[in-house]
Amino acid sequence: MGVKPKIRIGMIGYQFMGKAHSHAYRDLPFYFDNPLEPELTVIAGRNEEAVKEAQQKMGWLSYETDWHRVLARDDVDVIDIVTPNHAHAEIAIAAAEAGKHIITEKPLALTVEESERMLEAVQKNNVKHMICHNYRFVPAVQMAKQLIEQGRIGRIFHFRANYLQDFIIDPNFPLVWRLKKEVSGSGALGDIGAHSIDLARFLVGELKEVTAMMETFVKERPIGEMTGGLSAKGDTSEMGEVTVDDAVAILARFENGTFGTFEATRFAGGNRNKNKFEINGEKGSIRWDMENMNNLEVYLADDETGVQGFRLINCTEEVHPYAGAYWPAGHIIGYEHTFIHLMDEFLRGIHENRQTAPNFEDGVKNQRILAAVEQSAQEKRWVSL
Amino acid sequence: MGVKPKIRIGMIGYQFMGKAHSHAYRDLPFYFDNPLEPELTVIAGRNEEAVKEAQQKMGWLSYETDWHRVLARDDVDVIDIVTPNHAHAEIAIAAAEAGKHIITEKPLALTVEESERMLEAVQKNNVKHMICHNYRFVPAVQMAKQLIEQGRIGRIFHFRANYLQDFIIDPNFPLVWRLKKEVSGSGALGDIGAHSIDLARFLVGELKEVTAMMETFVKERPIGEMTGGLSAKGDTSEMGEVTVDDAVAILARFENGTFGTFEATRFAGGNRNKNKFEINGEKGSIRWDMENMNNLEVYLADDETGVQGFRLINCTEEVHPYAGAYWPAGHIIGYEHTFIHLMDEFLRGIHENRQTAPNFEDGVKNQRILAAVEQSAQEKRWVSL
Amino acid sequence: MGVKPKIRIGMIGYQFMGKAHSHAYRDLPFYFDNPLEPELTVIAGRNEEAVKEAQQKMGWLSYETDWHRVLARDDVDVIDIVTPNHAHAEIAIAAAEAGKHIITEKPLALTVEESERMLEAVQKNNVKHMICHNYRFVPAVQMAKQLIEQGRIGRIFHFRANYLQDFIIDPNFPLVWRLKKEVSGSGALGDIGAHSIDLARFLVGELKEVTAMMETFVKERPIGEMTGGLSAKGDTSEMGEVTVDDAVAILARFENGTFGTFEATRFAGGNRNKNKFEINGEKGSIRWDMENMNNLEVYLADDETGVQGFRLINCTEEVHPYAGAYWPAGHIIGYEHTFIHLMDEFLRGIHENRQTAPNFEDGVKNQRILAAVEQSAQEKRWVSL
Amino acid sequence: MGVKPKIRIGMIGYQFMGKAHSHAYRDLPFYFDNPLEPELTVIAGRNEEAVKEAQQKMGWLSYETDWHRVLARDDVDVIDIVTPNHAHAEIAIAAAEAGKHIITEKPLALTVEESERMLEAVQKNNVKHMICHNYRFVPAVQMAKQLIEQGRIGRIFHFRANYLQDFIIDPNFPLVWRLKKEVSGSGALGDIGAHSIDLARFLVGELKEVTAMMETFVKERPIGEMTGGLSAKGDTSEMGEVTVDDAVAILARFENGTFGTFEATRFAGGNRNKNKFEINGEKGSIRWDMENMNNLEVYLADDETGVQGFRLINCTEEVHPYAGAYWPAGHIIGYEHTFIHLMDEFLRGIHENRQTAPNFEDGVKNQRILAAVEQSAQEKRWVSL
Repeated sequence: MGVKPKIRIGMIGYQFMGKAHSHAYRDLPFYFDNPLEPELTVIAGRNEEAVKEAQQKMGWLSYETDWHRVLARDDVDVIDIVTPNHAHAEIAIAAAEAGKHIITEKPLALTVEESERMLEAVQKNNVKHMICHNYRFVPAVQMAKQLIEQGRIGRIFHFRANYLQDFIIDPNFPLVWRLKKEVSGSGALGDIGAHSIDLARFLVGELKEVTAMMETFVKERPIGEMTGGLSAKGDTSEMGEVTVDDAVAILARFENGTFGTFEATRFAGGNRNKNKFEINGEKGSIRWDMENMNNLEVYLADDETGVQGFRLINCTEEVHPYAGAYWPAGHIIGYEHTFIHLMDEFLRGIHENRQTAPNFEDGVKNQRILAAVEQSAQEKRWVSL
Repeated sequence: MGVKPKIRIGMIGYQFMGKAHSHAYRDLPFYFDNPLEPELTVIAGRNEEAVKEAQQKMGWLSYETDWHRVLARDDVDVIDIVTPNHAHAEIAIAAAEAGKHIITEKPLALTVEESERMLEAVQKNNVKHMICHNYRFVPAVQMAKQLIEQGRIGRIFHFRANYLQDFIIDPNFPLVWRLKKEVSGSGALGDIGAHSIDLARFLVGELKEVTAMMETFVKERPIGEMTGGLSAKGDTSEMGEVTVDDAVAILARFENGTFGTFEATRFAGGNRNKNKFEINGEKGSIRWDMENMNNLEVYLADDETGVQGFRLINCTEEVHPYAGAYWPAGHIIGYEHTFIHLMDEFLRGIHENRQTAPNFEDGVKNQRILAAVEQSAQEKRWVSL
Repeated sequence: MGVKPKIRIGMIGYQFMGKAHSHAYRDLPFYFDNPLEPELTVIAGRNEEAVKEAQQKMGWLSYETDWHRVLARDDVDVIDIVTPNHAHAEIAIAAAEAGKHIITEKPLALTVEESERMLEAVQKNNVKHMICHNYRFVPAVQMAKQLIEQGRIGRIFHFRANYLQDFIIDPNFPLVWRLKKEVSGSGALGDIGAHSIDLARFLVGELKEVTAMMETFVKERPIGEMTGGLSAKGDTSEMGEVTVDDAVAILARFENGTFGTFEATRFAGGNRNKNKFEINGEKGSIRWDMENMNNLEVYLADDETGVQGFRLINCTEEVHPYAGAYWPAGHIIGYEHTFIHLMDEFLRGIHENRQTAPNFEDGVKNQRILAAVEQSAQEKRWVSL
Repeated sequence: MGVKPKIRIGMIGYQFMGKAHSHAYRDLPFYFDNPLEPELTVIAGRNEEAVKEAQQKMGWLSYETDWHRVLARDDVDVIDIVTPNHAHAEIAIAAAEAGKHIITEKPLALTVEESERMLEAVQKNNVKHMICHNYRFVPAVQMAKQLIEQGRIGRIFHFRANYLQDFIIDPNFPLVWRLKKEVSGSGALGDIGAHSIDLARFLVGELKEVTAMMETFVKERPIGEMTGGLSAKGDTSEMGEVTVDDAVAILARFENGTFGTFEATRFAGGNRNKNKFEINGEKGSIRWDMENMNNLEVYLADDETGVQGFRLINCTEEVHPYAGAYWPAGHIIGYEHTFIHLMDEFLRGIHENRQTAPNFEDGVKNQRILAAVEQSAQEKRWVSL
């Protein structure tokens, strides 16, 4: 491990996604023979005490309290942006101008305009860029992609995605940054719906038009803040307005004629993180659900009559994407491994001077869809992309 | 069984639904102590050979080849309409005028106007009426209804229904009556989507507005006919135009603020008859799937932390609706039993001079929703109800 | 239906199994084109009030309070024995001597000796005989049989069966006849374990040797009686000794080398009627569970690498055994239909003068296994068959 | 992370389990605030090229080709034994005499006598010891333990475990060390059955007596070797005798009266690593399956009638054991994390001078059960423990 060239990471932010990314950099060399070895060079955050603790806990070599200083450092090759969404654009553009490769959390930005400026910046400055739609990198999802590309599913009629969570049903859950439009851009739409949209684009193709509805079921909440992961604490004495959607549902037509439906919500009790989709094609169907992420359900219409049915495929065999790096068949991996695969791909791209995906172009396209969804919901009409 | 007053049934039609209804009348007295005993008095169909065979096979006392003669018979109390959809209105209106109680398959009619005339006729002639939304009568669905009425689910945020079939994916599946607008009214929408809409109305309440998209994936098919159930045979030498939808997806808002999504399709490979829904409320969630119709999945948010999760309830215990009439717990029932429950309710209503549900009013409301869905899909806009 | 020759049934007993059999005779002509039409001629029971009520409710033409009179009647062709187990032998032997065909519930008798006398009687008197191991007649189980016979599973390594119930965990559940050795012969072993053993013999072949353990977890219970199905009522003021097993577990070797394990219990909370098995062979595996009885899970080792996995086959297609008689694919059937299939087979056998299976020979073999299991449990050693 | 006292690990062996342990030491500080920080000091193996590659790939600071040298090093606090089973005893005893703490893979040894000498050695030398029954450390299994200890399940009637694999069904799978008695001690029994036995002891208590059967379905295989994980390569030109069991089934009685059944096999096609158990008690039942290891199914008999059923609990909430260290609820972890939890416990024990479990005492008890199982299978009789 020690003999490979290092690639030095500077991370801006340190909460839920900061933890996921940090772990992925640390764990990557153990499992994958990436040509580069990531060094956790510097982590940045405004709260010195908190960032220092994060630095220690997650094994970063140094910390900064001003992200500009990270960009200014010569010993940083990659800027990894895991801040709340409203800060993505400014940091990414500055990082591009500083000649750093960039990896950022999704959604890319708060607006299409911002995201386009970000894309322009990375292209102009000729740096590599990545957006963390990590669910593409689940082995079962990669397997789905392979089956589709091999023609095993045939012409696709339906893409049907649900991303269901339940962490804010309690009206006393506080008004954290994820519930403020000026910080997060949107609610369920950009946070989780964006993932389903990315999977749709990855697996099926581009969307042509959408119509949608959005809802905020709980319109006021006590002021408060995230305490890690999706937990939070609040003080019920002061209330503030929720300015993002709690739920969104979308009808979509894809350019290839596929019929798409999407629903994302934070109000589906009992669904902690139910990110699932089903694809129906002329030759077969595919079902996947993040809560059992190692499994892929596949129906093949050319199976012999009488023994047709969805196969429950545990994508942990050597033949399955990424799975050979881990354990014998039947020994499952988890959420965090999706980031390892994503980082592996990103760093290989840098090493090979190849632009990997999903990247800022995907981010812009995703952002345009998010904007079209919001517009269609507001104007109660179909919006073309 | 023999000592009860008889109620004499005249059935118009004899295919898939005719079989389901016939069986239900025959089986009803065995399981339920209904105050009336149905007599399978007369069955009608235009093809004498076929109707005679049906009469013999299904145990009817007599047959007619002209439905007007059934209505004219004094020994018939109830007209049961299981013809293709386009004949519902004429027969039902004539039956009402003949003073017969009426039970009909869904959708009620081809158009809202027709369905309204049907409702007017039964009301004016003061006869009892029923529409066969049989899925209401699954014990697990009745249990869901009870939980909602008891307040166990609380305010409902989401109703999410999919009705997925796959019997016409093959482009050589022939152009049967179910695929002709002038006979069936619509395709997946009226045939299966209508069931989901009825369940939504039954469990959640009335819809306020909808927007939808519809698609016909295979636009031409060989001329042919149903051969029973959902099977068919065709002759590929002559092609005809498919004039109904293969798939429909709907966004809906309920009057009580619930967020509704519906999808019905005949192009979801591997899903033979996947009729399912999920309800998410502030206190709990409910999931149900017709392929495992005896089960209800229920999440209760007030379960103790640490042991929260969807409960898989096998609704076959004496305490579950209708289940006590059958077998010990864990011994499941099937599709056909839903009709027994529906007939039991209908005949009790007649005996007690009480109008049961779902009835022609439900049929009209359902038809208005179907029409609004079609309009919204054609005009690509939201339509209010 | 009316034009076929009738076969006239005389049933002795009228509780849970009496209901299942009565229904099957009534329903059989509706679904299957059996050459004979069963007539529910006479039902017998000692309690006149109860048997009269059963006669009425289940549609029998007459009743008797002494089973000898049923055997004496000329208008009875078949004796159907659904009494508690201790009465099987006497009735069956007398029925054979009276020249009646016989169908009986399982287990065949209380002892091997009894069962052998029963077999001798039917053979000597040349009547047809059947034992109601109804689970053989589940379409999914028949499908499993087909796959095995077609060589799709290959050499079988493992047969693994569990039959789990929970209806007597409560120590206040009364001491009904099912818990008294002199009436039932054994407990979980003969009541439900016998079914698993029959499935093993049907699907895999004969057993060679067994070793077992048995347990009675609750040794005393209040005196009481069944009230229908598996429900009961008791009076806690007087206690009696439970003289049968609550649970049994068996290791077995089959003659063909298959490794068998069985467990049957009435103390598995949450398992209302979990009758399941798994078969593992060199070319594939099969899983089945009565709670989802329409499904068969099949793994085929020659499926392409990468898409291997258990297929969830909903055995409701026309191509599946018995399924074509019912509804379109995906519309499930239930517990009661297994008896229709069994009766269909039995009556065809009578018509064609062919001895169908499972029959008294199967009953004797099953009884020998039950006896060997009991002996091995008592003597704590392997017992050869 | 860097400020904590280090605990220096010397690992003997470097294959499947070496990888799992190495990863756990590396990952532990990231997730858990263990008072000690493991240092991957030295890894040993006889094949210099291979061990050097392992050292590099897994991040060890140095390597040795003779394990005696690892024991002799002053800079090593803990010896971690991940060799094939036959080497456990010699290394462990020497390590104990060298005053090192010891962690070893299971089964503890090849024989009871060996295992007892190992226990004696660690006790005499007063070092800490651990055996890697990692499945105890699955959050869902820990949750099961809590529920049992809280009395939520009540008196336990049944423990039922299956550990099913399928990696050697192909008769051309070579004769690797796992299939040679002199190296591995036993086959399915010690490799996977031992895990089920450990879970039984952990969750239910000690076994009192067993009877078992064992089988070797494929008696000769081509000579060959493991190539990592459970993969292997062979050369079919030379055959050797398989000297271990392919499958084992066990009946057991626990000291507390629980009825136990176990089955372990490598011949259950489609089951890559199906490690599962079910517990039935007077107040509830528990089901768990390693292929969906984050889930625990729990039935509570005191749930309200009508809504009773197994709850599917995704043990990824902060309230679940170990889960708070990772991701928000619904984001699953995998196989490798079980080792992190085990190492966390072991190192805490060393720091607090507390002997953690499972340890060599557990290993000895497990070994005695394995021996009793083998004896009972050979002598075809019950063996007391």
